[in-house]
Amino acid sequence: MSAPVNLYTKLAAGVPEHLLLVETEDLRPYECDGLSAYRQVPLLVALPETIEQVQHVLRTCNELRVPVVARGAGTGLSGGALPLAEGVLLSLAKFNRVLDIDPVNRTARVQPGVRNLAISQAVSDLGLYYAPDPSSQIACTIGGNVAENAGGVHCLKYGLTVHNIQSIELVTMTGERLTIGSQALDSAGFDLLALLTGSEGLLGVIVEVTVKLLPKPQVAQVVMAAFDRVDTAGAAVGRIIAEGIIPGGLEMMDQGCIQAAEDYLHAGYPTGAAAILLCELDGTAEEVAEQMEQVQALLRDAGATELRVSRNEQERLLFWAGRKAAFPAVGRLSPDYYCMDGTIPRKELPRVLNGIEALSQEFGLRVLNVFHAGDGNLHPLILFDANREGQLHAAEELGGRILELCVEVGGAITGEHGVGMEKINQMCVQFRREEIVQFHALKAAFDPHGLLNPGKAVPTLNRCAEYGAMRVSRGELRFPELERF
Amino acid sequence: MSAPVNLYTKLAAGVPEHLLLVETEDLRPYECDGLSAYRQVPLLVALPETIEQVQHVLRTCNELRVPVVARGAGTGLSGGALPLAEGVLLSLAKFNRVLDIDPVNRTARVQPGVRNLAISQAVSDLGLYYAPDPSSQIACTIGGNVAENAGGVHCLKYGLTVHNIQSIELVTMTGERLTIGSQALDSAGFDLLALLTGSEGLLGVIVEVTVKLLPKPQVAQVVMAAFDRVDTAGAAVGRIIAEGIIPGGLEMMDQGCIQAAEDYLHAGYPTGAAAILLCELDGTAEEVAEQMEQVQALLRDAGATELRVSRNEQERLLFWAGRKAAFPAVGRLSPDYYCMDGTIPRKELPRVLNGIEALSQEFGLRVLNVFHAGDGNLHPLILFDANREGQLHAAEELGGRILELCVEVGGAITGEHGVGMEKINQMCVQFRREEIVQFHALKAAFDPHGLLNPGKAVPTLNRCAEYGAMRVSRGELRFPELERF
Repeated sequence: MSAPVNLYTKLAAGVPEHLLLVETEDLRPYECDGLSAYRQVPLLVALPETIEQVQHVLRTCNELRVPVVARGAGTGLSGGALPLAEGVLLSLAKFNRVLDIDPVNRTARVQPGVRNLAISQAVSDLGLYYAPDPSSQIACTIGGNVAENAGGVHCLKYGLTVHNIQSIELVTMTGERLTIGSQALDSAGFDLLALLTGSEGLLGVIVEVTVKLLPKPQVAQVVMAAFDRVDTAGAAVGRIIAEGIIPGGLEMMDQGCIQAAEDYLHAGYPTGAAAILLCELDGTAEEVAEQMEQVQALLRDAGATELRVSRNEQERLLFWAGRKAAFPAVGRLSPDYYCMDGTIPRKELPRVLNGIEALSQEFGLRVLNVFHAGDGNLHPLILFDANREGQLHAAEELGGRILELCVEVGGAITGEHGVGMEKINQMCVQFRREEIVQFHALKAAFDPHGLLNPGKAVPTLNRCAEYGAMRVSRGELRFPELERF
Repeated sequence: MSAPVNLYTKLAAGVPEHLLLVETEDLRPYECDGLSAYRQVPLLVALPETIEQVQHVLRTCNELRVPVVARGAGTGLSGGALPLAEGVLLSLAKFNRVLDIDPVNRTARVQPGVRNLAISQAVSDLGLYYAPDPSSQIACTIGGNVAENAGGVHCLKYGLTVHNIQSIELVTMTGERLTIGSQALDSAGFDLLALLTGSEGLLGVIVEVTVKLLPKPQVAQVVMAAFDRVDTAGAAVGRIIAEGIIPGGLEMMDQGCIQAAEDYLHAGYPTGAAAILLCELDGTAEEVAEQMEQVQALLRDAGATELRVSRNEQERLLFWAGRKAAFPAVGRLSPDYYCMDGTIPRKELPRVLNGIEALSQEFGLRVLNVFHAGDGNLHPLILFDANREGQLHAAEELGGRILELCVEVGGAITGEHGVGMEKINQMCVQFRREEIVQFHALKAAFDPHGLLNPGKAVPTLNRCAEYGAMRVSRGELRFPELERF
């Protein structure tokens, strides 16, 4: 047992010993999240069962100045739940109960370890569902969704996690319990609910979430459109949105993805196309019928070479099955792939797709594109072989360059995966020195000793100075101290 | 000239002298906002024309430890722009230009002093509009809207200000300029955009706003339903929402308001009714037609005694004219009235309306109700006569009790007017000690010397201890230090 006796003893004063793991074989399952290129066994894993136990763990660690990383299901893709060798890994796995369902206010109060899909399943009989649907929704938990402000295929129409929750219970690093948000549409005081959502475990530990529920749409139908150029498909996306139509989902796949998905799953995609769009409309039967006419006319006018509309629910699900299987399908093409996550203004889609192609050639690594086109949230998949020397590093470097391209056109370095470990350097490109300084001040207002998930999401100024020494962005030198280097 | 020479000289080093007001007759117009029961002439008014000048004013005041209150059009109803005798009033009135309109991304970049309605007018030819519509929209400015997170009749369907803006430029008290938000759907780092929205001028001064625009709905139609009991009307609201229908607007007026509006404007309201609901549906023609059938059936089933559907645009506008004129109409009934602003879960409408009636009788002051029923945002109007001794105080006390009733049922002490001066005591009822402490820490992270709009929105712990000494709320003693009193 490597955890210092003092820490263990103090933790055990408030948490039963069977909920404290210290043996290496018990710690190993927690060594990484979905960004598995980075691994670190933590000092100790705590699996509290009550809010009081969470308060005890945090208070104890604060007192002993031991860093803490909170973790849900560990499906995150940016390394946000990567443990620290000298830190406690706080798992919320035992907080897995749906506490209350309120059909009149259309809300559910759940513990943070409840799986995303389990919420929709619990309220399905009431004709309701929880809208955000990250592709990991079978496994990922609502606490992690809030920490990362998770999205999904339907967030174009129904919003990100932040738009679909009403309140949370939070425990701060000093062990204080805060109620954030209310049952009302707006809150007095500062909007801590939005601040906490997507804060990647840096400000507090979520111990309860009240989510908003929506009535299931009456009808959903999807149209698949084929294009002979990627940038034409990108331009078509802008046309649909500019028309005032907000599809339930609007996804794009390029040729490599189409081929991979088709080989894997036989969804009936046109493998000769350079790109396809999948556009789902939902609502009442009349609404869907009317908009489907409009969308088809727009797609034809935008240069679609083929249109296919789902004729029944089975066909609709098949169209989506190909999209949803795109990642594993691509996984068959290459020993390894790296999934990026950047967001851009929709109108920049053609320019950015061309830019990604140019970067792909520069680095000699194939990049496939499958993404939430409607909201400009890209997921380029970089194919590489980790066993070939230098390829992992090249893939990471290429990924970073793609994110910086997103910033250059006015976008952001994350859409739904968060910054975590992965994009910490790109934070220095996204933000100016003054903005990073403000983030640190805000972090200190919740966690004065910087013990919650340190090293993630917000870079130190030194890191930015070093990283920035190689770069000038948004036409200005962002970190003037680098002049001293 | 009462402003200290040192302050004036330093300000004048960066701001032309004609933009600095110090004579009492020039200061007088700034002595109050829409909460005119409170008045205070400021030490000095600055009317900067450029962002650099705003930075200079804030930097100078920070250095000299002079407090600053920022102000838009001064239409706020909670006293958020009330000046300080020893402070600078920073007016953004000269920042009144629409800088850029982007029809493809459906955004407009505007200066903070642009009026809310002027944005919609500027983009009307493109078939677009800016959705949040506070009733002061002819006069109020977008900077103030962001500072207060303004709502309006249509925010049930289209969201509050926070849901309709994309990014802001902010100047902090230390004069740093920050870009907050981006053109992408999500931002990396902490969500400062939501934190700043509704922060009531305590964290920084907004110098630019990029708003989201929406396509104008094809069709809008309103149904007016009469009820013979107020709580039956309240229950009908819950039924409509529970059905999954999100009206463009869903408003309620009680008998006193109906009568006052009808006498004033002859909108054709049924003056014998105890309450009316106005429910507007918007969207495509088919969607509106289908939902109008559904809503009428629901209203009948919920006990409506009369239903009238607008037959044309003129009739629709007439139905709304009565609602929009409710405040001036009530103003004719009583020498003074006090408009409150609390939010409750919809299902508590009947209980809270009964509670308001009981409080009205306890205080011997008439209370009329006109409000955004769909999102549970109440606007009780307390009638009083300021010239009768003790009535202003009684009205304020009654208003406070109504807000505390909102908290008791799980709601909030503000929906869209903010806390400001007005509701500062009720913050102690809404929040626990730990939460208020967290607000102060967060404030200090932006404004370490507490110079931006001090005394508003977030109460001191001492104030809460004193106020709390009279009260126990949410079943617990919130401010334990009061035991020492």
